[in-house]
Amino acid sequence: MTQTEAPVLLTPEALTRHWQGHRRLTRRTIEAFPDDQLFSFSVSGMRPFGTLAWEMVTTTTYLLNALKSDSWGWEGLSREPRPQERAALLSAWDDLSARIDAELPGVSLAFMSTEKDIPFGRQTPTSATFYTIDNEIHHRGQGYVYLRALGLEPPAFYER
Amino acid sequence: MTQTEAPVLLTPEALTRHWQGHRRLTRRTIEAFPDDQLFSFSVSGMRPFGTLAWEMVTTTTYLLNALKSDSWGWEGLSREPRPQERAALLSAWDDLSARIDAELPGVSLAFMSTEKDIPFGRQTPTSATFYTIDNEIHHRGQGYVYLRALGLEPPAFYER
Repeated sequence: MTQTEAPVLLTPEALTRHWQGHRRLTRRTIEAFPDDQLFSFSVSGMRPFGTLAWEMVTTTTYLLNALKSDSWGWEGLSREPRPQERAALLSAWDDLSARIDAELPGVSLAFMSTEKDIPFGRQTPTSATFYTIDNEIHHRGQGYVYLRALGLEPPAFYER
Repeated sequence: MTQTEAPVLLTPEALTRHWQGHRRLTRRTIEAFPDDQLFSFSVSGMRPFGTLAWEMVTTTTYLLNALKSDSWGWEGLSREPRPQERAALLSAWDDLSARIDAELPGVSLAFMSTEKDIPFGRQTPTSATFYTIDNEIHHRGQGYVYLRALGLEPPAFYER
């Protein structure tokens, strides 16, 4: 990894901390749903929050694999059937959090700023990483509405 | 602004482009609401999307002022009454987009990575900027649920 003495806007370590803060909040959001609603309740026919959270597992796994292998094909995003069960979801979640801590701080800056042909268009691995994080924030915001519709208080957004 | 030849994860210019992509998507979300629903409709007693969008105007104005002045006090977040009217909201939105283009690419990297006491806790201006962007994504995701509840198709998330 190239080191520089000059000030930088964001380091891979800071990006890792930023994402992990979001991931802890998303984990609390998963936990906030009643057992019988996580994979069934939604508003207006949208996907239940458990399904959205499994999508986050899929996109995060795809991203980590691509950052490691530099393979960006769609097949990395293929959907396997997922257990409709909170414990399995949380276990997959925690495994990925450990992978992020192990893999993201050490990414090469030159690699992260080189454009690739990825399923979301031609962009850098840095952009793809933000896309993955932003997609998580987007769907978690939807989960907040589901919780409100269930009469439940979502976790505090500012707490990471 | 300090320049470096070494590769970096994110430049102020790239951060500006990233945010402006989100802002264009949020603007399309504002436009997607029917006139008579933007400031009135919501799910489960949450704030209407027009109100959430004005909050984004407030937090973005606060951030840009703080990046310029290095003043981070709460008073910068004080709420003035806002017109319940889409045209006024979009006009404020566009003014801020122009300010972001004019002001964000030139921020000093040393300043952006120095911790400050800001209303969301002790953090760097870079973190405060991401907090502002993430809050926009979060609330926009809620707006997507409102649109679905109104039987309307939200704008495509991947289009920026």
